[in-house]
Amino acid sequence: MQTQALPGFRDFYPADLALRTHIFQTWRSVAARYGFEEYDGPPLEPLDLYTAKSGDEIVGQLYNFTDKGDRQVALRPEMTPTLARMVAAQAGKLRKPIRWFSIPQLFRYERQQRGRLREHFQLNCDLIGEAGPLGDAELIALAIDVLRAFGLGPGDVRVRLSDRRVLSKLLQHRGVPPSGMSRAYEIIDKIERLRKEQIDELSSRPDVFAPATVSDLVDISRIRGWDHLESELAHSSELSKSGGHLKETYESLSAMGLAEFVDVDLTIVRGLAYYTGVVFEVFDARRTLRAICGGGRYDDLLDAVGGVQLPAAGFGMGDVVLGELLREKGQIPPGGASIDVFMAYITREDLPHVLTLAHQLRDAAVRVEYALTPQAVGKQLKLADSRNVRFAVVVGPDERARDEILIKDLRSGSQESIPMNSLANTIKARMNG
Amino acid sequence: MQTQALPGFRDFYPADLALRTHIFQTWRSVAARYGFEEYDGPPLEPLDLYTAKSGDEIVGQLYNFTDKGDRQVALRPEMTPTLARMVAAQAGKLRKPIRWFSIPQLFRYERQQRGRLREHFQLNCDLIGEAGPLGDAELIALAIDVLRAFGLGPGDVRVRLSDRRVLSKLLQHRGVPPSGMSRAYEIIDKIERLRKEQIDELSSRPDVFAPATVSDLVDISRIRGWDHLESELAHSSELSKSGGHLKETYESLSAMGLAEFVDVDLTIVRGLAYYTGVVFEVFDARRTLRAICGGGRYDDLLDAVGGVQLPAAGFGMGDVVLGELLREKGQIPPGGASIDVFMAYITREDLPHVLTLAHQLRDAAVRVEYALTPQAVGKQLKLADSRNVRFAVVVGPDERARDEILIKDLRSGSQESIPMNSLANTIKARMNG
Repeated sequence: MQTQALPGFRDFYPADLALRTHIFQTWRSVAARYGFEEYDGPPLEPLDLYTAKSGDEIVGQLYNFTDKGDRQVALRPEMTPTLARMVAAQAGKLRKPIRWFSIPQLFRYERQQRGRLREHFQLNCDLIGEAGPLGDAELIALAIDVLRAFGLGPGDVRVRLSDRRVLSKLLQHRGVPPSGMSRAYEIIDKIERLRKEQIDELSSRPDVFAPATVSDLVDISRIRGWDHLESELAHSSELSKSGGHLKETYESLSAMGLAEFVDVDLTIVRGLAYYTGVVFEVFDARRTLRAICGGGRYDDLLDAVGGVQLPAAGFGMGDVVLGELLREKGQIPPGGASIDVFMAYITREDLPHVLTLAHQLRDAAVRVEYALTPQAVGKQLKLADSRNVRFAVVVGPDERARDEILIKDLRSGSQESIPMNSLANTIKARMNG
Repeated sequence: MQTQALPGFRDFYPADLALRTHIFQTWRSVAARYGFEEYDGPPLEPLDLYTAKSGDEIVGQLYNFTDKGDRQVALRPEMTPTLARMVAAQAGKLRKPIRWFSIPQLFRYERQQRGRLREHFQLNCDLIGEAGPLGDAELIALAIDVLRAFGLGPGDVRVRLSDRRVLSKLLQHRGVPPSGMSRAYEIIDKIERLRKEQIDELSSRPDVFAPATVSDLVDISRIRGWDHLESELAHSSELSKSGGHLKETYESLSAMGLAEFVDVDLTIVRGLAYYTGVVFEVFDARRTLRAICGGGRYDDLLDAVGGVQLPAAGFGMGDVVLGELLREKGQIPPGGASIDVFMAYITREDLPHVLTLAHQLRDAAVRVEYALTPQAVGKQLKLADSRNVRFAVVVGPDERARDEILIKDLRSGSQESIPMNSLANTIKARMNG
């Protein structure tokens, strides 16, 4: 007898599902405002779709197996390879730029820890066929607007914005040779989390990024805000030119009124190797949770995975960290009643009338329940109370003799008899009133 | 380079996803009218959750494997075991009757043929903790109302309704011994599809259901409609009593105005061994497709799988056959435009104003797009046309000098200049008007 889900997998009881639905609906409605259309792909894909992009080492984190047709398959750990596959298959036919979003459930076999499940849902938004900075701004604005739609403001969430092209030029300007670039990225990525002794220790020996030093990296990692970065870039025209795309992205976000959410911050490197330009992550302002959202420009990926040359940018936002933040900020909407009307009956002979009327109400899109086992009317009304329902409708022999029924408004306590054939209209009017 | 999904798995491009969304929204809205609340469980479950219910032979049809923690796991082939597991885990806390629905994606490794995929989505509605016929009627009415909501009438879809208890009593009355019951069920189940020679062949030799004969089974399989069945049941009070539950189910559906969809028909046996009472299937009226929906009462299952004694009934309705029927009946809603407003700009200097105004519109839940690469205004308006959008809004230096913008209604061909700060209100008013 099995009563537990697998470790790292969630059961969604109705209250949990209501939060998930709130998250999905908000994701969908904001994506639609940006003209994004929803797509989906299979949760099970050929294994080589993932190894082609991420190398064989990813297999250690996958739910992969051999199917009964001897195919190497895996539960999807991320959506981008499926997206690249689907776009490649129809590349000629699809209108550019492609504005697509999806809400896949993703799977990774990971060591379990708080907030690290083995499955989660993720909003994926991608803009394909557009290389310019307005595209990056569009995606970042979409991510911010999603969070605003959840009731979060610039005091709750912060976008950390960088551009790989700027970072690489700045590192080059400080003397980092091409062969030292990825090591420099790696240190920049974690420099915030290093203790002073660790930095001193790093500084005490030459590294592959010499002649640049650890203190050059520290300098770069401390740049905060567009103005600060712009003054750093003023040192050469090549540097200044490298910042053009980021500048326009930032200014576009300003024109949209969203700059107050954005911190230019070059320590955002993004672990995945495939980003080529603007990259960003969104964190809770107090930085107590993992990233809420991350993404950027990946102009070479569609060629690598799907053999199609199209510039692209996108982001992913998971439901788990977001849910934690909403809970922390009190932004989880209260659960409502599952029904609008409870119908009660006094005698067995009233029951067919209840069935008829209940069905009329349901046809008018009213949510109705009634006791499926005949029982005393008092007990039925107690049932109605337990449902937190607004209206109880009582059908009895006396009312029926007059072609009437009794409506009780359980919120106001008022009750009145109305003509039986006006029930649906009366309830609809009161629900809207 | 991988451009194909696995065989039997679907890619949902936006047009396909729009149909899926239409199906899911209709499922959700009708389930809500019946007070059903949505739940979900993991798509990956312990293998023994399925073998406990269906025996080891089911493994041949599963996507099963050993995970990296040495657990035997399987992609869910059906939802009921997960439901039973979840209900069992919280049985004491959950309000009865439990009215739950879910829209899981289900997976089976099957031989491929038309309409037989290896994954599909299925609406699952279950009513747990209610043994009476009103519960069965409630579920069947919900299934019918879902189909009505898709624009299908009694000339399009037919519910075939039976009750295992009635069938078993009728077979017993004709002389079928307990040991011959499952063989008799098996023949009843397929009797419609047997050719005359096959029936003659069966009749020519004694079977385990003797002294009953094949012609007894043929008689029973030819019973059509409640009145016909009732006259058959009139032969004994025990028979008549066995029909009480089915009678009340049928009469309840009549009171709801849904009897015109329902054919009482004892050849509906349902393959799964666990049904204990009322069973039903829904077919397209011409019977050219597989079943659209099937379900019934399974009072013993929760005990067997979850160790909780609660009566239960439910049904499943898949998206694949339903989609085929909707297509055949012309009931697929036409795809709409993905945006409401396309914003165009005449000079580079107009762009920041476009960004500001577009964001204001998006904040007002209007779906907006604009050219992400600056281009001639004529080209932008062509882009707007290709989007099938209703409104184009043009920002140019002359209009800006007057604090105005130009709105073109691409449906009516009319255009007018309005104050810039009234854009959102004007668009909202016209969209609703």
